[in-house]
Amino acid sequence: MAGLFISFEGIDGVGKSTQADLLEEFLAERGKTVVRTLEPGGTELGHEIRQLLLHSGHVAPRAEALLYAADRGHHVATKIRPALAEGKVVITDRYLDSSVAYQGAGRVLGADDVRNLSLWATEGLLPALTVLLDLDAETAVARRAKTGSAPDRLEREKVEFFEKVRACYLEMASAERERFLVIDATESIENIQAHIRTRVSTLLAEV
Amino acid sequence: MAGLFISFEGIDGVGKSTQADLLEEFLAERGKTVVRTLEPGGTELGHEIRQLLLHSGHVAPRAEALLYAADRGHHVATKIRPALAEGKVVITDRYLDSSVAYQGAGRVLGADDVRNLSLWATEGLLPALTVLLDLDAETAVARRAKTGSAPDRLEREKVEFFEKVRACYLEMASAERERFLVIDATESIENIQAHIRTRVSTLLAEV
Repeated sequence: MAGLFISFEGIDGVGKSTQADLLEEFLAERGKTVVRTLEPGGTELGHEIRQLLLHSGHVAPRAEALLYAADRGHHVATKIRPALAEGKVVITDRYLDSSVAYQGAGRVLGADDVRNLSLWATEGLLPALTVLLDLDAETAVARRAKTGSAPDRLEREKVEFFEKVRACYLEMASAERERFLVIDATESIENIQAHIRTRVSTLLAEV
Repeated sequence: MAGLFISFEGIDGVGKSTQADLLEEFLAERGKTVVRTLEPGGTELGHEIRQLLLHSGHVAPRAEALLYAADRGHHVATKIRPALAEGKVVITDRYLDSSVAYQGAGRVLGADDVRNLSLWATEGLLPALTVLLDLDAETAVARRAKTGSAPDRLEREKVEFFEKVRACYLEMASAERERFLVIDATESIENIQAHIRTRVSTLLAEV
């Protein structure tokens, strides 16, 4: 019995949590057992790694990439794969595409290196579906500011940085059209969810 | 101006610290600035990673390898390379050969994978000299027990495990004869140190 692995991607402020909540409701109504999780920090060890990443001073770029990959490897081995083996639906807020987009494109490391590190960490586990909520960076940052939560290290980065991340996401999506569902995040919450449910229904019929 | 990078390797109880102390004295007498360091935990971030590794419960094998590599990458980028660039001698208690021997050979990951991870983390930095203090595992464990310090997770591993680690060290040394100096750790402290000083003197003459 194989489960279904779905990731939500996009820059902060595009509405990933809202859409994941609605998808979870939809799946629960259809009798599916859903495991909600996130990266970084989806496990106890991962939570500690996340604390290191957010609250340490300067972290060398390769060390940072390795810490994210360690979080991911542990997350997959101890939480995601076991849930999938039990036939559950796993919905994660961010997965390896986040690392490629944020570290690979935005910083000093090559996208291929970052991706290969994550593939090694996870023994090659990719989602069946990656929902990319696409929004221009300026709008996303403005939305985010309205939430009132204190910005963390990544959130303080500039709008220009998020534009680079967005471009990298779109590039990955066009290279893997089967896996990615790209949705314009300026559409209504209901419309976005309808797109997602249509695609997920198709995947469930295939499982 | 390029410094000199030296690592000490061997299973716990072979006398790495004692020999490193004596080598530091020798180098200081010759007017060298010596930086002593260790892995895991040679930086503040590395210390926190070491705490995670020693005191977390189960850590997935790939996550463990990635955490060691993260520690090493940060250590090299923020401490070892800057010191070498200033012409200092860096002496580290354990470096990438420890990861290959302990994780690669002893556990479930391939030695090549573990080595490649570290080479990526460090941008390929290898020591000019790696002193391997070689001792059979039973003697090493008996020596270690006399120190009275509480055994950590790795130290609790069995003698058979250390024999595998030792075998892996010797294999690496025979593959890289230029870099490794293998010394029988049952020799006297003075004799061991004499071997090391001879080799280090040669290297200093070349710098």
